[in-house]
Amino acid sequence: MAVYTEVTDDDLESFVADYNVGEVLACKGIAEGVENSNFFLQTQQDSFILTLYEKRVNADDLPFFLELMEHLADRGIRCPLPVNGRDGQSLRRLSGRPAALFTFLEGMWPRKIHPFHCAELGKAMAQFHVAGLDYGRTRANNLTVGNWRPLLESCGGRGDEVKPGLTDFLARELDFLEANWPKDLPRGVIHADMFPDNVFYRGESLSGIIDFYFACTDFLVYDLAICLNAWCFERDGSFNMTKAKLLLGHYRKERALSKAEIDALPVLARGAAMRFLLTRLYDWINHPEGAFVKPKDPMEYLRYLTFHQSVTGPSAYGIGE
Amino acid sequence: MAVYTEVTDDDLESFVADYNVGEVLACKGIAEGVENSNFFLQTQQDSFILTLYEKRVNADDLPFFLELMEHLADRGIRCPLPVNGRDGQSLRRLSGRPAALFTFLEGMWPRKIHPFHCAELGKAMAQFHVAGLDYGRTRANNLTVGNWRPLLESCGGRGDEVKPGLTDFLARELDFLEANWPKDLPRGVIHADMFPDNVFYRGESLSGIIDFYFACTDFLVYDLAICLNAWCFERDGSFNMTKAKLLLGHYRKERALSKAEIDALPVLARGAAMRFLLTRLYDWINHPEGAFVKPKDPMEYLRYLTFHQSVTGPSAYGIGE
Repeated sequence: MAVYTEVTDDDLESFVADYNVGEVLACKGIAEGVENSNFFLQTQQDSFILTLYEKRVNADDLPFFLELMEHLADRGIRCPLPVNGRDGQSLRRLSGRPAALFTFLEGMWPRKIHPFHCAELGKAMAQFHVAGLDYGRTRANNLTVGNWRPLLESCGGRGDEVKPGLTDFLARELDFLEANWPKDLPRGVIHADMFPDNVFYRGESLSGIIDFYFACTDFLVYDLAICLNAWCFERDGSFNMTKAKLLLGHYRKERALSKAEIDALPVLARGAAMRFLLTRLYDWINHPEGAFVKPKDPMEYLRYLTFHQSVTGPSAYGIGE
Repeated sequence: MAVYTEVTDDDLESFVADYNVGEVLACKGIAEGVENSNFFLQTQQDSFILTLYEKRVNADDLPFFLELMEHLADRGIRCPLPVNGRDGQSLRRLSGRPAALFTFLEGMWPRKIHPFHCAELGKAMAQFHVAGLDYGRTRANNLTVGNWRPLLESCGGRGDEVKPGLTDFLARELDFLEANWPKDLPRGVIHADMFPDNVFYRGESLSGIIDFYFACTDFLVYDLAICLNAWCFERDGSFNMTKAKLLLGHYRKERALSKAEIDALPVLARGAAMRFLLTRLYDWINHPEGAFVKPKDPMEYLRYLTFHQSVTGPSAYGIGE
């Protein structure tokens, strides 16, 4: 649920007047996403998404995100394309926030993941990685291995309120991850948040990828590790090998994976589970009483982490050399 | 902010298959309205609003509301039109809720009320009242004078937590309203909730009226009394006579007001203030900790009520015989 900033009709009219999109016919706040305020905007010319960037997004990062979407769209990746105003700029201000207008992407995100979703995802992710290789900007991943211990420490031992012993368990896992994190895998632009609600489908075909606001420069294969967590577990916590196999197999048809990348999958999957477990734990502990957005359960990712700890090699994900 | 019920893509696809609207291209939860769950739905054929009726709406009342919209639309009133499925029915079920699909109405509701909004509103309300005169169904207003004392009593004196002495003040006002409420004014279908967020405009022209889920059979002029409260006060609490004059004047161009209706305006305006004050007070007192929807401030309507108490005749609203 997310509309944090109210946009008045007067403000909107003067904002839209800076574009060649015609008169506003309708504007509805969208109850999706938790980081920014999003509106469905219909004008005489077309449908758009209007995004207002809220405090959690660093305004200095916005050019990286917006130019990335332009770069990807130029290379045929289906993603929202920032619309330029008459001044040639896509980033401006509305209701006291940085704001941008985007082309509207058809499709719906899958509430229930079927194997075909994972096949399409693998293919699209590889195409996205390849398309991003010649992107000129870089952005450090500020939610990777070196950032996790400070994040755990900022929880001040309160993880034990969620589950007794959790803080110690996570500290030990961090010892392992810090000692075993890969150092020299192929790097490039990763999405870093390619959860089902950020991937749209029409029927059985992927129609586009949205929400590039965690995108950064990191190991490409780490994006797959995130998806092993976010797409391949069933609601009962069991790991669906068929989905993983389709995800990785269809990825490899578009972009080859090296032996080093494949071998790194188990530790990267542990790391990806840790990253989402920690941010969820932090949000769980720190969400204000009566908060607008209900925080997600960190325990889901503890179960995933425990699964990955038990893995002895990449074959557990249905992949070999 | 309102999407209370999650709709899965699978459920939505089978729901939409019962209509002749083509394939679903997009579906976004809308962060507006507090009673029901609303979705913007784009199909190959057109844009629609999908509404799921939540618990606060009595399912037995839905035929009254849906047939009213059809009746009004047939008579040229711009309002959402329920879309019939292949079986000729507009009301069906989705995700465990009664649900209906509606035509999409262009326009935006005004965040800041200008005088021209009130002129357009008066005209459209009178046209709506006239169009409803031959509607065959009736529905009692369950939020009128006889319902207010039980509502105040259900607050159990906790009004004094909001403002000391409030409960006694409201009880005395109820004495006055019960003794002085009109008995024989012209009746018909009223909207009963025509607040700015339920009236859409394109530029300076009213483009449609939405949200008929409080509609009922009552004194027509009571609808105007609600709008004197909801549209004619400034944010600082002052009453804008120009807006009231335009509202009532443009109404009278479409439907004549009798002397009895005009004379009743001050007591009806007090009653309308009481009705919204009481439901807001009840919601304020009873909203669960950490509630999803922030309750509206009841004190706004105490200020309006105090204004109407000071009124000595309808000329205070810019209207004479």
